[in-house]
Order: sequence, then structure tokens, then C-alpha cells
Amino acid sequence: MHDIKWTNSEKKLAREVFDTAVQQELSEVIADFKSKAAALSEPDELWSLVKRTDRRRQEIDDKYDFRYSQLLRVFGQLMREGRITEQALTGLSEEKVSIILHIAGL
Amino acid sequence: MHDIKWTNSEKKLAREVFDTAVQQELSEVIADFKSKAAALSEPDELWSLVKRTDRRRQEIDDKYDFRYSQLLRVFGQLMREGRITEQALTGLSEEKVSIILHIAGL
Repeated sequence: MHDIKWTNSEKKLAREVFDTAVQQELSEVIADFKSKAAALSEPDELWSLVKRTDRRRQEIDDKYDFRYSQLLRVFGQLMREGRITEQALTGLSEEKVSIILHIAGL
Repeated sequence: MHDIKWTNSEKKLAREVFDTAVQQELSEVIADFKSKAAALSEPDELWSLVKRTDRRRQEIDDKYDFRYSQLLRVFGQLMREGRITEQALTGLSEEKVSIILHIAGL
């Protein structure tokens, strides 16, 4: 995947898809956190929520890696998770879409 | 402080004062956390709240040490913070109260 070339329009598209996905996932994390924070009443629930949320932050940091050498893998994972659709990738080369679909296991 | 003897009634009183203080502080942490969680809307605010709350958990863990060798120091700190009053210590020996007040700097 390190040899794959990205055109400028592909890079622009990839950035948009990437940013939309990460913003969407962060919105979900925030909404889930706020809901759980509102519902808790005991210290143990608080510490548990804090621990889970910090782990979630680390997972998101790890997952959203915009290096072009990693991007097809990242998009494959996001597609597997239902976070992006094949349609959103319209504009990427057939080769790239094919690799992403392969990684997604679709 | 390691040589100070605690009578059974002092131990019982100390446990009550200690438990009340820790529960009060945890209630404050939870209320503050819930209020800040409800108000936040950005990922950076979320990660910052999570980090601060985890640090608060560690501080509370460190502060509330019920070993009798530590308890006068703990009570002194709690009094300095306004979390316990001299009145709440009625029933402890004069020597203990005097040490607590000294540590509290009052």
C-alpha cells in the first residue's frame, strides 16, 4: 500500500471522508458520554465511565491515522464498521476502492 | 503519630467522620462532573474533563487513608480544607485534637 499514488483530487476526497467519519464518531462518543454522565449517581459508575471514555479516546487516536500509507486500511476498517459507504468513495481509483472493500471484508 | 493509641470509641468516631467526609467529597465530584458533562460539546472539552476527573480520583484515593498512623494528618488536611470541623471531633482525646488542629494550621 506504500506504493499507491494519490492524486490531488483523491487526497481532497479522502480528507473529506476521513474528517466526516471522525467527527461523526466523536459526536457519538460525546452523546453517549453525556447520556451516561447524566444517568450515573455512584462513584464507581463515575470512575468506570471515565476509564472507558479514556480508552475510547486512545482507540480513536489509533484508528484515525491519515497517513496515505495507512489510509486504505483505515477506510477499510471504517467501512467494516459501517462508518463510511462505498458511495462516499466515488472519485477514488478502482484499485483503491477494491483494496478498501477487500480490507472491509465486503 | 505511630505511638498514639486509639480507643474503640475513638475508632468508631473516626470512622464516621472519615466516611462522612469522603462521601461528601465524592458527592461534590459527581455533581461537578455531571454539570460539566452536561455543558460540554467539543471533544477537547470531553478529554479534558476525563483527564481532570481521573486525576481527582487519584487525589481522593491518596488523601483518604484510614490507617491510624495517618489519620491525624488526614483529619488535619480535611480540617484545613474546611471538610471537617473541630466540633465533629468531639470524643477524640485532647492530644489528638490538638495535633489535628496543629496540622490544619488553625
